[in-house]
Amino acid sequence: MTNVRVFVTYKESVFDPQGETIKNAIHSLGHEEVSAVKVGKFFDVTVNATGVAVEKVVKEIADQLLVNFNMETYTYQVMEEV
Amino acid sequence: MTNVRVFVTYKESVFDPQGETIKNAIHSLGHEEVSAVKVGKFFDVTVNATGVAVEKVVKEIADQLLVNFNMETYTYQVMEEV
Repeated sequence: MTNVRVFVTYKESVFDPQGETIKNAIHSLGHEEVSAVKVGKFFDVTVNATGVAVEKVVKEIADQLLVNFNMETYTYQVMEEV
Repeated sequence: MTNVRVFVTYKESVFDPQGETIKNAIHSLGHEEVSAVKVGKFFDVTVNATGVAVEKVVKEIADQLLVNFNMETYTYQVMEEV
């Protein structure tokens, strides 16, 4: 069993209005030392497989379901393999 | 300057309907080996500070803005400190 965290973010070239809004709200709270905020989603996926098989599953579900490749990109991280 | 990633998730006791729906969709794609999906948000925050000062900022913006403590909880990770 492998726990994978898939991170989905806007591509660098895509404006992140939610991040900008949150940054402005943080400034309103008095935290001018925060210079940038970017928002993303993550998916904690438990896969009953290990090694290369996990890589294949993650790629397929990212391609077919989790990621809008027009605007988004993804990375993933194996959190635990048991 | 410190880059911090703040992870916001539902509390364990709170049902995650989006995660369940995605899990079912993954099964429809034929990936029965995926046994659980949990969805979360993350915020990549750039703070013009280092060390303990960053910890204080993160705690304050989580408490006052990013997290709904009725349903959610958070963790954070320092990604880069320069």
